[in-house]
Parts: sequence; structure tokens; C-alpha cells
Amino acid sequence: MAHEIGTIQEDEGIAVQRRVADYQPPRSWRTWLIGRPLQTADAPHQAIGKIVGLAVFSSDAMSSVAYAPQELMVVLAAAGMAAIGLAIPISFAIVGLLVILTLSYEQTIHAYPGGGGAYIVARDNLGELPAQTAGAALLTDYILTVAVSISSGVAQITSALPALYPYRVEIAVVLVFFMMVLNLRGVKESGTVLALPTYFFIVLMFVTVILGLYSYLTGSLGTVVNPPPLETVLAAQAVNLFLILRAFSGGTTALTGVEAISNGIPAFREPRSRNAGITLICMAAILGGLMVGITFLAVQIGAVPSAEETVISQLARTVYDGRGLLYLATITATTLILILAANTSYAGFPRLSALMAADGFLPRQLAYRGSRLVFSRGIVALALVAALLIVAFKASVTALIPLYAIGVFLSFTLSQAGMAHRWWKSGRLKPGDELKERGSTLRLEPGWQTKIAINSVGTVMTAMVALIFATTKFRDGAWIVLLLIPVLVAAFSGVHRHYRRLAAHLSLENYGEPPRIARHRVILPISGVHQGTLAALRYARVLSDDVTAVHVSIDPVEAEKIYHKWEVWGKEVRLVILDSPYRLMIEPLLEYVEEIAAQRQPNETITIVVPQFVPRHWWANLLHTQTATWLRLALLFEPGIVVTDVPYQVE
Amino acid sequence: MAHEIGTIQEDEGIAVQRRVADYQPPRSWRTWLIGRPLQTADAPHQAIGKIVGLAVFSSDAMSSVAYAPQELMVVLAAAGMAAIGLAIPISFAIVGLLVILTLSYEQTIHAYPGGGGAYIVARDNLGELPAQTAGAALLTDYILTVAVSISSGVAQITSALPALYPYRVEIAVVLVFFMMVLNLRGVKESGTVLALPTYFFIVLMFVTVILGLYSYLTGSLGTVVNPPPLETVLAAQAVNLFLILRAFSGGTTALTGVEAISNGIPAFREPRSRNAGITLICMAAILGGLMVGITFLAVQIGAVPSAEETVISQLARTVYDGRGLLYLATITATTLILILAANTSYAGFPRLSALMAADGFLPRQLAYRGSRLVFSRGIVALALVAALLIVAFKASVTALIPLYAIGVFLSFTLSQAGMAHRWWKSGRLKPGDELKERGSTLRLEPGWQTKIAINSVGTVMTAMVALIFATTKFRDGAWIVLLLIPVLVAAFSGVHRHYRRLAAHLSLENYGEPPRIARHRVILPISGVHQGTLAALRYARVLSDDVTAVHVSIDPVEAEKIYHKWEVWGKEVRLVILDSPYRLMIEPLLEYVEEIAAQRQPNETITIVVPQFVPRHWWANLLHTQTATWLRLALLFEPGIVVTDVPYQVE
Repeated sequence: MAHEIGTIQEDEGIAVQRRVADYQPPRSWRTWLIGRPLQTADAPHQAIGKIVGLAVFSSDAMSSVAYAPQELMVVLAAAGMAAIGLAIPISFAIVGLLVILTLSYEQTIHAYPGGGGAYIVARDNLGELPAQTAGAALLTDYILTVAVSISSGVAQITSALPALYPYRVEIAVVLVFFMMVLNLRGVKESGTVLALPTYFFIVLMFVTVILGLYSYLTGSLGTVVNPPPLETVLAAQAVNLFLILRAFSGGTTALTGVEAISNGIPAFREPRSRNAGITLICMAAILGGLMVGITFLAVQIGAVPSAEETVISQLARTVYDGRGLLYLATITATTLILILAANTSYAGFPRLSALMAADGFLPRQLAYRGSRLVFSRGIVALALVAALLIVAFKASVTALIPLYAIGVFLSFTLSQAGMAHRWWKSGRLKPGDELKERGSTLRLEPGWQTKIAINSVGTVMTAMVALIFATTKFRDGAWIVLLLIPVLVAAFSGVHRHYRRLAAHLSLENYGEPPRIARHRVILPISGVHQGTLAALRYARVLSDDVTAVHVSIDPVEAEKIYHKWEVWGKEVRLVILDSPYRLMIEPLLEYVEEIAAQRQPNETITIVVPQFVPRHWWANLLHTQTATWLRLALLFEPGIVVTDVPYQVE
Repeated sequence: MAHEIGTIQEDEGIAVQRRVADYQPPRSWRTWLIGRPLQTADAPHQAIGKIVGLAVFSSDAMSSVAYAPQELMVVLAAAGMAAIGLAIPISFAIVGLLVILTLSYEQTIHAYPGGGGAYIVARDNLGELPAQTAGAALLTDYILTVAVSISSGVAQITSALPALYPYRVEIAVVLVFFMMVLNLRGVKESGTVLALPTYFFIVLMFVTVILGLYSYLTGSLGTVVNPPPLETVLAAQAVNLFLILRAFSGGTTALTGVEAISNGIPAFREPRSRNAGITLICMAAILGGLMVGITFLAVQIGAVPSAEETVISQLARTVYDGRGLLYLATITATTLILILAANTSYAGFPRLSALMAADGFLPRQLAYRGSRLVFSRGIVALALVAALLIVAFKASVTALIPLYAIGVFLSFTLSQAGMAHRWWKSGRLKPGDELKERGSTLRLEPGWQTKIAINSVGTVMTAMVALIFATTKFRDGAWIVLLLIPVLVAAFSGVHRHYRRLAAHLSLENYGEPPRIARHRVILPISGVHQGTLAALRYARVLSDDVTAVHVSIDPVEAEKIYHKWEVWGKEVRLVILDSPYRLMIEPLLEYVEEIAAQRQPNETITIVVPQFVPRHWWANLLHTQTATWLRLALLFEPGIVVTDVPYQVE
């Protein structure tokens, strides 16, 4: 029973009753899987603090230090081992870019306390098309992050346990759905689960780097014992600008995942912007420190980029003097963080799709919160598409990698350009003026010229990285993403057009309501005269005094029987027997209805009352022609005609 | 526009109008494929004469002379080539059995002019369970006939053109659907197509046999040149009763297909029984003559049963002195008749399933005639199951054969037993007495004792053949059929029980009709206030003065908006706002409806009027929660509650 809050009796005589439905969702396998449903009022308690937030939103970014230094070094190796020393200045350049991105996003977080990733910034400052492009790029990238990180984590597992190699696709898919369930439980609980391994990884990485630097300073840091053979992915060449740029772009894979926090601001505890901003800066500091530290030490120990042994592994066994406990812990932590990196997407994808759904670019259902207050449909959609991708690419990181990162840098570019435009707008305001925008308020910003400069440099840098990615990896798979993004943008526009048109059609502005329906005709198709038909007849007579029963006859003997039964039971209601020479049931009835509809007056409505048999077992439906269903489908598109099924349950 | 036949104004004041819907089915790809739809009144013109009837109903039986003599000889070969001479007396025994079967079925055809295969004879004379068993056996066998004959015909093609061997399953499936289309066009047209090859085969076989006999009598018949190596499927053994019985049962595969005509009587031109009877006798005479003739000549020329070269091929090249034109024509005709043998099933299966559907053992839809007046659903069902079987068994005749023939002989046994019982009943009648039965009239039959004797011998013989088949081929696949038949019988009973219960529930006998509905409450769930909602509100107010709008709220801001809009547009109709703390839409509404339903008076009905948005494009449905559909499904099982969708079309 619902309990009543109260009845508001208005002057105009309209009674409005307000009640809380205290329907208790029953316990089921879902309860067991994702926990008991939460009430909407429970929402704020689900918000997370900085410590958990760092774990939830940074595992993607953090995990990239496991492969970014190597990606950087492998390009330089084309110019010989001596050129690898260039990795150190390049890593500083990447950290420089990281600083620009962090500054920009920190500003964004404060300008957009409701959550402001590239999509929102582009939407508010650049317009609809750039916003949709940013959205498409980000959604694609979130999906790829899940596919790539899980596949890469599974690759680490199967390197350790080769017996599992034939099952890598299955393991990856199971992990994808395991993370889906974790995230369906809710961000706080999944955050708690994830905080531990993330911090485990961070601590171990810092121990490795600090110990390494200490050894370096005390002069006791040696070089890699038995380094793996050098792997060159490029033809041997001299050091030139293109090579350096390419190495730089390889290293920038460390920056994927920086976006996550700015989209996730609403998940933070109040004051949200402040907490999110601090978390972002912490993350950038850790990420930058590790990036430079690992690259510096890797160069010092003469680590060799190779597919056989990762640079991290070479560094760890050099620092820890062999494959001891700390070495194993470091490798385990790396594997874990790679798998958990997928979690960043599980936090980001549903939020972004909910945002875009609320703006009418994606199906509205993505904006509804599920039983645990998370955007369940987005989480499930992400898991399904990522699993499909893993199956299609057979969980191969090598095959997936070229699709990755273009999306991130495209969205970075759009976000930076948007912020630059924002500062320019801010610079044109008079002191004290305010410009209200959808998601934020714009005022004259002191130092807006510097900010434009920072963002412009950022725009150019990230655009360049995106371009280099797109051109150098086009044939390896980047073309898929470059094709997919415009397709997605077109789909978003289609969805948006649909919702906008619908809203215009349904709008009550300037709406002249048609007068009340004056005449109501009821047509009652019958296949026989029995208890079910009579129940429908009783109902039809409640609806209107103007009832006509119609029997479509394919058998004259049957028609005769019906006619005689109708004399007894038909309550003097008109009966039309329609002979159907082609033995069709629906079509003659439709023809008859349309004939009546064509003659109707302006304020006349027609209702077709169809007796519908409801069997006890589903299979019994196969034993009946589903006339009611087909009739409803056929008449769905006729304005002013309503089809009502009167179900008769046979127990 | 329908044209009116007339209005019958009855004394009681009930007006009955009778019209012919002259809805013209539009031309479409179906017209192209199976011909223009036919009116029910066209039906008699579709009946077939004896010449076409022989072709339509006998291709199965005829085709078996292509393999039956060989099946017989291959068993005898286990006792050495000398034992093969026994084939001649055994072939006479088989013809004896054929005579018994023919006599019995000829009597059946006259006793059951409406069509009387084993199913009807068993139903009227033995009871429901034997009838269902016969039905299950026959339906199974019809399906197997299609699978076996088509596969065997394709095997002949691929022997000639080995390049096609990898595509044998595809070719077989295409042939199955080609025959389906032929039969959907209607029996007369498909009969015309089939008459030619069937008569081609009969003529060539007779030419071979007569020429062979002439050579034999003039002493110029030689022996097979280069006979293929002897193939023994059994261990070498002496001649004993079991071996002879087994050879006999192998040869009785010639008798499969004899049933077809008696089921197909309604397809014949009037006088039906006479025409069908004559056709049956013609068929038996041809079949018997060919069976004995081929076996006799095969023994004389020393033909060797072998998988490498068929006995027919050996006979043809001996009679025609090598592989000349007549030899090639004989082989081509054999291939064609094997494929067309499937057509017998396409005629028999739909008729039998229509009969069983009319008796309520199969879904009623199988008894409806399609646009070309044939039982289209039966034809399509047969094609689908046979195609599935061909795919599952990879079009292998060897794998399918053990499943085959048990069904036929089981149904023969039941039919013979039924006829024997019928004569016994007839013998107990006084002269001049009549016993009316469902499908026939029973009188004292002169010579009923002889008839009992004939049918009893037939019952024992066919039962024995069925038993020998079941035991000797049990492990090769016969177990599948022995398992399937009881499963089918159980399914038939389930269907029958459903229809019987339904009829009892709907019956108007002793039906005290409940009084007219006194109170009608309308509940109008709304998700917003817009043109669609208002259309539904207008409709709801036509239905009743007692309307309550209900809004399930998951967002207080939205609820507030709806409340204010309702003040303007709600026409003073009561509004209930149901807060849903768990953000569920359907469940709180259902709870509310059930609360109202629990309080209702005896003569009260509740209608839920749901505004349903109908998009222009199907994909737009993905952009909306299908509340109306879910609600209807959820309330389908609630007696006394009607759900009406008021569609609003957005153009």
C-alpha cells in the first residue's frame, strides 16, 4: 500500500493527490549480484572523497606509465641505442604537455562544477558539431580503453601462465563482465575495491623510482643484466624532427585518462570542484613524477625496448637486484593496474552518455539511474561493445592499439580550443559583467591573455599529436576510428532531430485543443460466439451504445452457426458477416474499418474491441492465430482509431 | 468497397448484414513466386484426374523400385551369390503383401471417401491413442521421405558430377525449397510439372523390363559385363529364416508410399473414391510388375548388389548393350524420380496435418488453406523440418535410411488392424442395419470373414516387418524414431487437451451470463502533459466520467511542472502523483492499479488508457521506454482489467 502524503484541494476544483509508492523491489538474483536497490534519497551518501576518487578516476592514467616510456624509447631506437638518451628531454616535454592539460582541466573543473569534460566545454564554447565530435571521440575511446587495458592485462597473465593462452578471449570477456557487475553495484563500493590495487601500484612504482634514484646518486646503479634483444619497429634512420615528434606522440599515451576526473566531478563529495581539482593535481603530479623518473632510470640502466621483456620489468630487476619478492610484487601490481584501468572507462562512459542523453543526442534511457543509482544502461552498453571488440580482435593488444589514443587527443584538442575561445570571450567582458551560459557563469578573468596562450599552445600540441597518430597508424586500424567518428556524429544528429521534432509536435504552445469527442463507434470483431466474445461484448456496450459486431467468414457453415448463436446472445447488437473469398482475416476487417473511418464525422472516434485469449502457458499462443496483435499493429498508424484488447484468461 | 448481399431484418430487432469483402490481394513477390491468390469458390477446379493423380501420389512408391530390389539382394548375398536366386520368390511375396495392402486401401478409399489414411482408420476403429501413434508415425515418415529422396537424388547427381559433391547439402536444401514453392502454387500445377518425369521413368522402366524379358525368352540375354565387386553388409552365413525375413523386410521398402493416395482422396476429381481407387490399383500394378520384373532380370543377368554401381544401372547396360542413349535416359529418369518422390510427401504431409489439426491434435492454423487453396503452413513446415534434417545429417542417405520405413510399417499395421476390427464390427450388424461413424457409414459387409482374414494376415506381416526394422536397425538410428513417436504422441495429447479445455471454458452451455457492467473506472498513466497525453485524456473522458490520471514521479522538479500544466490542461480530472523512490515506472503503477482493483465492486471494470507514441521510423522505438507495451504484458493476466493504448502518430 502506498502511503499518502496529502491531498491538495485547489480552488479550481482539481484534486491532486501525492503519495509515495512504497513498492519494495523483491529480492532476486539481481540483489545477490549487484546489491539491494537504493532509494533516490540515498544518492548523496554514494559520493566519494579524494582518496577513493584518485583510485577510481586515475587507474587509466596511472597504468599508462607501464607502457608509455617504452613506446617512446622504441621509436628512438630506430636511430640507434645512443639516440635513446633523447627520451629524457622528450619525457620532460610530455610532462610539460601534462602540466598544460592539468592547468586547463583544473580551470575547467572550476568553471564547470556540474562536470565538464571535452564534450561540455566544446558544447558551450564551440557549438553543436564540435561537441558531438568530442562526444563521439570520447565514447569510442572509453570503449577502446576497456578493450585495450583488459587485453593487455590478460596478455601479462598469459605471459606468466602460457597454459591460459588459448582461453585469453574468454578470460578477457569474463573480466569485462566482472568489472561491469562491480560498477553496477555503485561507484563507492567499486571504488573501495579498486583503491587498494591502485595505491599498491603507486607505492611500488615510487619505491622503485626512489630506490633507483638513490642508487644512481650513490653511484651503485648498474646496468641491465642480460638485456633482451633490441626491437626496432621502424627502419634505421638518423635523428630528425619527425622521429622526435613520433617518439613524443608515442610517449603521450601516458596522457590518456587525464580527462576522466573532469567528467566525473558529480561523483565527488562536496565541495565537488575543489575535491576534484585537488585529485586531478595529485594525479598529474604522481603521473608526471613517475613518467620522468622511470624514463630517466630506464635510460641510465641501458634498458632495451622489447616485446620479450617490458622496460618496467628490466628496471625492477635492476633496481631490486634480480627477480626477488619486490620484483614480483611490482609485476603483479602492473598487471592489476592494467586490468583496473578499464574501470576509469566504467566511470566515464556512463556519465558522458548520460550527459549526451540528457542533451538529446543519445537515447534518453541512458540518462536514467538504475537500481543502485548508477547509469546502469551505459555500464551494460560499454561492457557489451567492449566484449564484442575483444572477441572481434581476439584480445590482441597489437591489433587494438592503432585504434586507440586518436579519440583522446581529438577531444583534448577540442577541449583546449573551447577553453581558449572561452578566455577570449571573457576578455571582451567589462569588469563586473556576467555572461550566463548553460553550464557555467562567465566573468572577466584576470590574466586571460596568459590563459589563452596556454590553451592555444595546448591546442596546437594535442592537434599535432592527433594528426601524427592518424597518419602514422592510418593503415594499421586508425582508419576505423576516423570513419566511425563521423558515423557516430551523424547518428547523434539523427537522434537529436527525432527528439526535437517530437517535442515540437507535442508542444502545447499555441495549441488549440480540438473539441470533445462527440460520437464513439465501437467495432467488435468476433471469430465465434463464446464466453470470451460475450465478455468483450459486455465491455463494448459500456464504451458506447453504437456497437457493431463483425465476423469475417471463410466458412459459410460457421457463419450460419454464429448468426444463430448471435440471435440468442447478441443482445440485439448489429452483426455484420463479411465473406472473405480469399480466406484472409485481417485485410477484409481493415477494409471495413477504413470504410467506416472514411465516412466519420470530425468529432468521431472509432474503437476496435478485440477479444483476446490469454493462455496459461506461453506455448499455447502457438495454437492460436494472433489476430488481436496483428490488428493492433495494422491500425497503429491510423489516427483516431483505438484498438482495445479485452483479455479473457482461461484458468 | 465491399458489396452488400443484403440485410436481414429479424423480428427480434437484430440486424444482420451480409457482405462479400472484395478485397483484392495486391500483387507482390508472392504473386510472382506462387501465383495469384485464388478464391475459395475456385476450389473444385483445382481437383486432379487419374493421370495427374498417379504422378502426384505415386512418385514415392515408384521411385522405390530403384533401390528395393538391391536392398533385398544385398541381404541374401551374405549367404553367397547362389542364394541371390531366392530374391525372385521373395519379390513375389512382397508383391503378395502389396496386393493385400492395395486391397485393404482400396476398401478404405471407398469406406472413407473424405480421405482415409492410417490415421483416420485407426481413429475410427481403434481409438485415440492408436490414431495419434499412426499420425506421429506418418508425419515422421513424410518428413524422412523428403530428406531421404532428395539426398539420394542429389547423391546420384554428385556421382555423375563429383565437382558438386562439396555443395550437396546446399543443393539438397535448394531442391527442398524449390519443391515447397511448386507445391505452394497448388497441387494441379505442380502435378502437371511432375507428371512428365514420372511417366518418363515408368515408360523407360517398362521398356527395360520388356526388352529384357524378350531377350531372356529368345535366349539372347547375356550376363553383366565387368560387374562391380560384391558388397556384403552382413557376416557370411547360411540361408535361414531370419535372413529371408530380413531380405523380405529390405525389399518391402518398395511399399513405402502406398498410403499416399488414400490420404489424398479429396484432391481427386469427382467421383473421388472411384478415381482414387483406380489410381491406387494402377499404381500397385505398375509397382508390382516392375518389382518382380527387375528382380527377376537382375537375378538372370547375375547382377551384383554394390555401392559402386546400382543394380538398375547394371540391368540397363546389360539390356541396352552398353552405356548408350537409352542407358543414360534410364539413369536420368531414375535420378529425377528420386528427387520427385519427395513430392508425394508434399502432397501427403499437409493433408494429414490439416486432418489432425481439424481434430485438435495439431495447431488449428495447419487446417487453414493458403492463398492458393493448399495447406500452405503444412507445406512450409515440412520443408523447414526436412531441410533441417538434411543439414543435420549432411545429406547422407546412409545416415538417414535407418530412420526411414519404421514409421510407414507402423502405420500400415495400425491401418490393417483398424480395418480388421471394422469388418468384425460389420459382421455383428444385422442385415439392413447402419452404424453411423464420424467419417463413414458401416453396414453388414458380405464376405466380412474373408476381409478380416486378409487384413489380419496384413497386420501380422506389416507388424513383423516393422519389428524386424526396429530391431536390426535400432543402433543405426531407428532409436531416434522410436523415441520421437511417443514424444509426438504426448505433444498431440497436450495440444488436444488445450483445445478441449478451452472449448469447455468458453462454452455457452449452462452459462449464466453476469449482469451488465455497472461502473467503469479509467486510469490514465501520464509521463508528461503534452498533445499525446491530452488526446488520451479526451479519449478517456469519452469512456467514463470516472477518470484518474496517474504520474509516477522519479524527479520532483518534473512532477511540479506536470502539476502546474495539469491545472491548465487537465479539465479538472483527478491527478495522482506517485513518488517512486526506487525509480521504477511500471511496478508502482501496477501496485496502484491492484490497490484500486482490490476495492472494486462486483460489476466494476477498470480500463487503463495509455498514451502510446508511434514513431515514423521503427528505430525511433529504441529512443523511448516502451511503458505501454510492458504495462499491457503485466496486466494481461488480471481479470477485469483492460489496457487500451491511445496511439499518437507523429508525422
